[in-house]
Amino acid sequence: MTGEPILGAARLYMAAGIAERSEGAAWLLTGITSNERYVVRTENAALVSRQEGLGRPDAARAALIPIRKSAAWWALPQDERRHIFEEQSKHVALGLKALPAVARRLHHCRDLGPDEPFDFLTWFEYSATHSAEFEELVQVLRASPEGEYVERETDIRLSRAGI
Amino acid sequence: MTGEPILGAARLYMAAGIAERSEGAAWLLTGITSNERYVVRTENAALVSRQEGLGRPDAARAALIPIRKSAAWWALPQDERRHIFEEQSKHVALGLKALPAVARRLHHCRDLGPDEPFDFLTWFEYSATHSAEFEELVQVLRASPEGEYVERETDIRLSRAGI
Repeated sequence: MTGEPILGAARLYMAAGIAERSEGAAWLLTGITSNERYVVRTENAALVSRQEGLGRPDAARAALIPIRKSAAWWALPQDERRHIFEEQSKHVALGLKALPAVARRLHHCRDLGPDEPFDFLTWFEYSATHSAEFEELVQVLRASPEGEYVERETDIRLSRAGI
Repeated sequence: MTGEPILGAARLYMAAGIAERSEGAAWLLTGITSNERYVVRTENAALVSRQEGLGRPDAARAALIPIRKSAAWWALPQDERRHIFEEQSKHVALGLKALPAVARRLHHCRDLGPDEPFDFLTWFEYSATHSAEFEELVQVLRASPEGEYVERETDIRLSRAGI
């Protein structure tokens, strides 16, 4: 979508814990789940009350969206990043609107080390019947003020094998 | 100070970048500098205008204070962690009061991986004549509401060799 692309791959293998580098893999991306960075108490309560877990049998579509934000983003103080994230871009409100259809898990990469290719790996799962809600979510976020700080983004779409 | 202690050591070696494990070292701690997590624009401006860098010739005293916060802290949403950090505990205001005497650099460890022994490594530098300001800073922060969320803390004091 933005910046240097990554190689295409026919299949994706996701592993929990420390991944061993796979022979013949086109690439290996690593992230870690972490604490919330912007979400406030009332937003968290709304998200938790509506979200469903990963691995739902009917959620046969998925997307892995690695992004890296610019140095300008990271140089902003917390209050200004929050303002862009929610008051301007409605990041939580948009995610909430897509719940429970679009399940999501965010992985942080930036603080794994100084040479990480991406800052975040976001994983989405949804059923084919909810594809439109997912597409709207990512399009609106890309067009938001927060989206202007994304300097590298790849969008990998997946379907569960056999479905 | 709190929780499991670490082994004493006669000397400390600090390396930038990826450290290679030293033969015979009592321990190795790793952290990464990162973006601000709580500081707002006005606080950042005040800090930047008053702080001085590391390595000042007269700053012959140092402290390395590794801490780990509790799961209860990390489960709090951003607004509540910020409230405890500054509105209740005056973390920035206290650090600002000690500037420029006490220089400081924060390293994050928690998101390096799931098994890190500490969440933060904070490094302080000050001259012998400013020891009292440093001691007051750490004592007041330990006694603050934020300090109640610290479940492991070690306090390593150093003097530069030959001074």
